[in-house]
Amino acid sequence: MSYDLYYWPMGPGRGEYPRLVLEAAEVAYRDVARLAESEGGGMKAMTAFLSGERGPLIPFAPPFLIDGDLVISQAAETSAYLGEKHGLAPLREADRQFARSIAFTTADLVAEAHDVHHPVGTGLYYEDQKSESKRRAEGFRNERIPKFLGWYEKLLSNNPEGPDFLVGDRLTYADLGLFQTWLGLEYAFPRRMANIAGDYPKIRSLVERVSRHEAVAAYLASERRLPFNESGIFRHYPELDAE
Amino acid sequence: MSYDLYYWPMGPGRGEYPRLVLEAAEVAYRDVARLAESEGGGMKAMTAFLSGERGPLIPFAPPFLIDGDLVISQAAETSAYLGEKHGLAPLREADRQFARSIAFTTADLVAEAHDVHHPVGTGLYYEDQKSESKRRAEGFRNERIPKFLGWYEKLLSNNPEGPDFLVGDRLTYADLGLFQTWLGLEYAFPRRMANIAGDYPKIRSLVERVSRHEAVAAYLASERRLPFNESGIFRHYPELDAE
Repeated sequence: MSYDLYYWPMGPGRGEYPRLVLEAAEVAYRDVARLAESEGGGMKAMTAFLSGERGPLIPFAPPFLIDGDLVISQAAETSAYLGEKHGLAPLREADRQFARSIAFTTADLVAEAHDVHHPVGTGLYYEDQKSESKRRAEGFRNERIPKFLGWYEKLLSNNPEGPDFLVGDRLTYADLGLFQTWLGLEYAFPRRMANIAGDYPKIRSLVERVSRHEAVAAYLASERRLPFNESGIFRHYPELDAE
Repeated sequence: MSYDLYYWPMGPGRGEYPRLVLEAAEVAYRDVARLAESEGGGMKAMTAFLSGERGPLIPFAPPFLIDGDLVISQAAETSAYLGEKHGLAPLREADRQFARSIAFTTADLVAEAHDVHHPVGTGLYYEDQKSESKRRAEGFRNERIPKFLGWYEKLLSNNPEGPDFLVGDRLTYADLGLFQTWLGLEYAFPRRMANIAGDYPKIRSLVERVSRHEAVAAYLASERRLPFNESGIFRHYPELDAE
């Protein structure tokens, strides 16, 4: 059995959230939009689902995952689905459910990080909304980043199983999502993150631990891992960063 | 058994999504922040969870639901959880999973509707970001609303069970979410919605049908239903609306 994951091939973006779960779980998958058309891949294969040619379960946007006759979309939902199936979710029911709440909250943070460089609209270029972006970036750096990171740090501090994981006693898709988001924030806001990283020792330790996870480390060193860039969610525009 | 739902008492907001599921399913619940402190309610009862006083499963923000030792947060996740437990979810596994994708996409639309009046940041008043709001509203009215509504209309048109529901052959939390969002858009953008409503006959029929659902109709006529207002997600600022 192999999954088909669909996401824009240009960068990690929201597709990286389910992709990391697939990689950490070491399950087989095809990253379809990145395959050649001769292998059944490419953008055409992706847009066929979005246009409804592949059936009535039409995702609104990538990422989405095809598992037999199941169509799962939304980055956090797809991550939760995969994590729960492949041992990257908590075991206890309350923890299992709470991991979902964490992942969806991370999705909100990711959306806010995107809107820093697109505050006026996704239909316009960054260059056409630079002054608005500067205003939004200030609140994001000074209020939103600390609010979200402070919450994760608190979850780690309060976890009755210890501070190694956000919830429960094993690595989950919620931890992987925080890992990716932390790296994205460091990429986009290096000055700000260098200034405040010391406030979040438990998150940093988690990020460090995830990066050494055997399957994750192998993935990060592979060509499958796409670097952050300025066409994605997390973009490094120096004028939007500050200590 | 009774659920405890927590959300800001000032308006429908994101709390209305799980609240509608509870009401449509006719299950008992306490709307805790709207109860008197003498009944164990009020804002203090809500902030106790958010500050961590009530245990290590700390929601990031309302709405959240307490079901025994389970803490479920995020409007769409809470709606899905309740819908699946109480007969307001599809039966077939692929449909059941797809209903989740729909609900989370609706949550994205709701977040975008909010950001129309807060494009620069949630930490600032609308009055301090009016010019940015005007720019964002234009793209939201002209591009985003039709993109989302066109997608729902397509799901209804393509549903092999017929156009009565977004997915499957019965009312689900995904339909209830669209119902509430449509009303919110009509409240916030009456001129725009009057202009384009005719393009979405199947959504309008669904909204009409939901409003006549016995339990929903009783709820809408009750004092439990909070009206939209200008401190919520969907706000009617005439300067942000246009045909």
